[in-house]
Amino acid sequence: MTHDDRLLPLDPGVRALARDLYKQVRDLPILSPHGHVPAQLLLDDEPFTDPASLLVTPDHYVTRLLHASGVPLETLGVGRGPLDEADARTAWRALCTHWHVFRGTSVRYWLDSTLRDVLGTDLRPGPDTADELYDAITDRLARPDFRPRALLRRFGIEVLATTDDPVDDLAAHAALRDDPTFTTRVLPTFRPDRYLEPAAPGWADAVERLGEAAGTSTVTYAGWVAAMADRRAYFRAHGAVSSDHSHEDVGTAPLDDADAERLYGRALVGSVSAAEGVALRRHMLLEMAHLSTQDGLTMTLHPGVRRNHHGPTAERFGPDTGHDIPLPGAFTDHLRPLLERYGTHPDLRVVLFTLDESVTSRELAPLAGFYPSVYVGTPWWFLDAPASIRRWRESVTEIAGLSRTSGFIDDTRALLSIPARHDMARRLDAGFLASLVAEHRLDEDEAAGALVDLVAGRPREVFRL
Amino acid sequence: MTHDDRLLPLDPGVRALARDLYKQVRDLPILSPHGHVPAQLLLDDEPFTDPASLLVTPDHYVTRLLHASGVPLETLGVGRGPLDEADARTAWRALCTHWHVFRGTSVRYWLDSTLRDVLGTDLRPGPDTADELYDAITDRLARPDFRPRALLRRFGIEVLATTDDPVDDLAAHAALRDDPTFTTRVLPTFRPDRYLEPAAPGWADAVERLGEAAGTSTVTYAGWVAAMADRRAYFRAHGAVSSDHSHEDVGTAPLDDADAERLYGRALVGSVSAAEGVALRRHMLLEMAHLSTQDGLTMTLHPGVRRNHHGPTAERFGPDTGHDIPLPGAFTDHLRPLLERYGTHPDLRVVLFTLDESVTSRELAPLAGFYPSVYVGTPWWFLDAPASIRRWRESVTEIAGLSRTSGFIDDTRALLSIPARHDMARRLDAGFLASLVAEHRLDEDEAAGALVDLVAGRPREVFRL
Amino acid sequence: MTHDDRLLPLDPGVRALARDLYKQVRDLPILSPHGHVPAQLLLDDEPFTDPASLLVTPDHYVTRLLHASGVPLETLGVGRGPLDEADARTAWRALCTHWHVFRGTSVRYWLDSTLRDVLGTDLRPGPDTADELYDAITDRLARPDFRPRALLRRFGIEVLATTDDPVDDLAAHAALRDDPTFTTRVLPTFRPDRYLEPAAPGWADAVERLGEAAGTSTVTYAGWVAAMADRRAYFRAHGAVSSDHSHEDVGTAPLDDADAERLYGRALVGSVSAAEGVALRRHMLLEMAHLSTQDGLTMTLHPGVRRNHHGPTAERFGPDTGHDIPLPGAFTDHLRPLLERYGTHPDLRVVLFTLDESVTSRELAPLAGFYPSVYVGTPWWFLDAPASIRRWRESVTEIAGLSRTSGFIDDTRALLSIPARHDMARRLDAGFLASLVAEHRLDEDEAAGALVDLVAGRPREVFRL
Repeated sequence: MTHDDRLLPLDPGVRALARDLYKQVRDLPILSPHGHVPAQLLLDDEPFTDPASLLVTPDHYVTRLLHASGVPLETLGVGRGPLDEADARTAWRALCTHWHVFRGTSVRYWLDSTLRDVLGTDLRPGPDTADELYDAITDRLARPDFRPRALLRRFGIEVLATTDDPVDDLAAHAALRDDPTFTTRVLPTFRPDRYLEPAAPGWADAVERLGEAAGTSTVTYAGWVAAMADRRAYFRAHGAVSSDHSHEDVGTAPLDDADAERLYGRALVGSVSAAEGVALRRHMLLEMAHLSTQDGLTMTLHPGVRRNHHGPTAERFGPDTGHDIPLPGAFTDHLRPLLERYGTHPDLRVVLFTLDESVTSRELAPLAGFYPSVYVGTPWWFLDAPASIRRWRESVTEIAGLSRTSGFIDDTRALLSIPARHDMARRLDAGFLASLVAEHRLDEDEAAGALVDLVAGRPREVFRL
Repeated sequence: MTHDDRLLPLDPGVRALARDLYKQVRDLPILSPHGHVPAQLLLDDEPFTDPASLLVTPDHYVTRLLHASGVPLETLGVGRGPLDEADARTAWRALCTHWHVFRGTSVRYWLDSTLRDVLGTDLRPGPDTADELYDAITDRLARPDFRPRALLRRFGIEVLATTDDPVDDLAAHAALRDDPTFTTRVLPTFRPDRYLEPAAPGWADAVERLGEAAGTSTVTYAGWVAAMADRRAYFRAHGAVSSDHSHEDVGTAPLDDADAERLYGRALVGSVSAAEGVALRRHMLLEMAHLSTQDGLTMTLHPGVRRNHHGPTAERFGPDTGHDIPLPGAFTDHLRPLLERYGTHPDLRVVLFTLDESVTSRELAPLAGFYPSVYVGTPWWFLDAPASIRRWRESVTEIAGLSRTSGFIDDTRALLSIPARHDMARRLDAGFLASLVAEHRLDEDEAAGALVDLVAGRPREVFRL
Repeated sequence: MTHDDRLLPLDPGVRALARDLYKQVRDLPILSPHGHVPAQLLLDDEPFTDPASLLVTPDHYVTRLLHASGVPLETLGVGRGPLDEADARTAWRALCTHWHVFRGTSVRYWLDSTLRDVLGTDLRPGPDTADELYDAITDRLARPDFRPRALLRRFGIEVLATTDDPVDDLAAHAALRDDPTFTTRVLPTFRPDRYLEPAAPGWADAVERLGEAAGTSTVTYAGWVAAMADRRAYFRAHGAVSSDHSHEDVGTAPLDDADAERLYGRALVGSVSAAEGVALRRHMLLEMAHLSTQDGLTMTLHPGVRRNHHGPTAERFGPDTGHDIPLPGAFTDHLRPLLERYGTHPDLRVVLFTLDESVTSRELAPLAGFYPSVYVGTPWWFLDAPASIRRWRESVTEIAGLSRTSGFIDDTRALLSIPARHDMARRLDAGFLASLVAEHRLDEDEAAGALVDLVAGRPREVFRL
């Protein structure tokens, strides 16, 4: 088992305070309003086969650092179909023999917790223990209590959001909702990025399929808007509470109707420039905000990444293979058109995420400290880790308090790490609040109230759960 | 009363060291060389009427977070005249019922101290205590020892700078200076921003009034310079020690005389582009530095804010209503023309403030570590808060030491918070220096000397008090 | 003597852990793969003359803050030849009387250690002790055990890299290598910056000399490449393990052969624009990476500085006089062409340094966490200081672990400070790892292994020592 006091403050007095606070939220149910576990996995409820296919191959947080350490992605099974046992063992061994390269990383923290607390193994991964661990884990995974649904139950996950394409029929979500033996609410999330990039290859085909799904022609911009509204309604009807947007930037800028139609028409025939594509995308993102004021889907914005930085790897292994690299963040001017129009609308909720820590105190907290629609999202991706989260909480709180933050977002496809992630956030927030108490900036009962609100209140308010 | 050890380091040993250091400066007089308390308030010395009009309505640090939490600005009395009792109670109740949203913010820290240490109330604000607090505070405010001048005396404020328009006649300052019963030095500050924005609406009228105040024609650029020099001299004669400048950026770039005159002439008739307006402003800011080398007014530069981010709120409620949002900072190249000309001039002093923490170690500390004219200003606005100040001190000190910083600047119009703000800085600096001692990087007597210098020496040197 | 526990964590329990870790690396030999001590100094092995010429005049870390404090550079002996005793005493006194301005800086830390641990003096510098210290130090410096080679031995320096011009004949390096009594490996470093700035004055002459040194004509771009390859081979033969590059940015962008030749030809006759100079430089930097894949020289990239910010000082006193000021950093897009081509090449190693802390978690750690060729360089220059290093280690580790960092780089010409610098890094890393142990994120034996690897493993791997 991992240690009871992990991540709590180092000073013994503050640690004791933090421990008391943490106990008050330790066992609260998990609300996960944004993540990447597929609904089909939960519907099928098949056993996981082996530790590599579960913990290594699909997790680009893990594979990237192994790749940096000289292990080829193919050795890790990336971009291939199901692994046979020999290949799975090879991939697992690669992780175990490079266990030291993860020292101090968040991946190490998730894996420690997954191996010890979820899978009940206590061996330290290494070249000598790789096979024994492989066997022990494979053995456990075959047991009924390690199937996906059993894990959700054991983890106390009350709400779990998936991420889905607007044309998805959400059949898996419907089946899960209609299954009386299954109590977790599994919510789809509307992720329309590809339909908002008119200069990208394949866009015209995508919007045609969008129109088909919506039963609406998308040969005009007005049709595109109608199709979007239709699919959003469909998602709402299947439980969706948010739409998610990840473009190179969060620029928003209105076009007049004629310009929008004109650019849209040219995009359909593939004759917009990159700059025109950006202009249309920024208008479309504004449209998404407008639709949000009508249907109440919370917008989560995850901008600022150069996707597929290493072209040769992307070509060979596909996207999401560990080389999406952050860019400088910019929100103040980029979001101004959106916020001038809808920022004080009572039905809009926007959550801002960044991979550029310098914008947190400069832009995100000041925006969330004025606009009732804006919340600061918890640290994302590379920054979803203990020290980063501490820096973030320190940067945000003095400016925007605690109530203008989103509540923890795990954003993960690594199902087995979900409890460790939420538990980490609870520990860190307990530690942060304990420090405020120890500095005499907050009373202990207020800290307890604040912590419960962060765990249970924020996600419910921000995502209207 | 607030706790004696608030904000001191968490480790008991370091806290004890810090406590000893803090005691040596706790009772030193307050020097406030930059702020926004109006001189007229001190001249009139009228009692404050009620807690909302004193602590809520005029303080956009307070109203912004209430607005973000769903309270309309009109409920808080923003943009209205004096509040009647019912409206004042309503505004006060809005603060009390949202007390939790300020947990961990600097506003909470100021208000705790104001309510407990200045106003002597010990109830925690909340829906149940709002009225009792309202009555208790209103009662106290009616007492003679809670009038503005009595508070200045009680707070031990030796110097208090105001912020003033160049055409102000400074009559209130003169009257205060001539009043033998009033011992605080109240100094005007020359704030010429509006006269340096040639592309802004109203600029031509403003420079005409400037000329009238100076008794000089401002129909030429040379006349503008002469009028500025005249008004600066007038301010100097009334005790001013600094000029304050807050534009979108700190760009400085010389124009030749003919270009300056030409652009100036076109600006007078409203025919400069935005870019030309910026070019002329950057030349004018350079002029301000030149005048500073002659008259010795310290320049404080507060750049990098998108003012009035939410147009609809600005239109309805005016400026300074909580939605000025920071922009990325840039000093290295922007200030180079100024510093190449005047950066080693023995009579220039420039204090650089930022809302972008990433420039602190990257640009501000390196500049202040070479140019004898440059000082790093203490954290401003959103960053004027304990954790931000700790980050700032940690970022600056290793590069530029302690002596190249400005001394604490409260920059506030919230008169009752002034002692808490300066006390906060003393506590944090004591804690910072105690940590250096505990790390064996500084001897204890040096830490004490450094702390006294930060509190008493820096403001006197930087602002020539 | 400086204190045994300096820089260790403040919490007594964590400090004890850190002390145990530190002891395991305290006495390991020093590997210094990048620095500025001249090889000739070691070859000559002359005694140092006095404390000012040794510790003040040549060290722009020291002189800049004295200059900011009002001491003219000429008083400090900058830009002059050898100082006579009177002038040396004056320069030394300037340091001692301004000792307080260094409180909390890294310079203070180096000087404390140099004065106490290397020179064995225990007086605190000040106006009253300046002369006594001057005499005591001068006396020691005359002793044989304070000559450069004796100090290298005493410091336990196993490898020491210098920084050298590509046309340098490296005679001093050869002589040192061939001296059986001298056991430190002194390695040249290939620093070709001036040959990669085609728009800079003097470039054409420089590349002509480059061609002469290589015995190759450099009248074509292809000739330039051949000359570079030749000189790199010459450096390799003399022990070089790296090339060092410091331009305004790390932009890399390929030109086709014809464009490269055409721009090169125009640059030779002085007719390229600044933008064309940059375009050619970015192509040339890409070429350097290509050559690195062939000859295995590790590339260290130190971009992002506005050199000679204060023109008048540069004109009078030359470069490296304390007013190089950092600029915003940018790596993600700038390095992409290089990394797409060579980023996964097994023989490339690139170390990225920054003076802009905001890029550490945003760009450097994500890049090093994927590309096997990329390492994050330890904090450089202004940031080579305890608190900065702590921030850096906290920012990098969660994203890229410990193994993707370079190992400590002292980058100094201050020979006497080398042991204190490496010792500082060992202490800080011990403290960092102790905190991970105390947070239950790492076992104690893992922390010890990681610390040894940071001190002994990283430099050997990254620089192939």
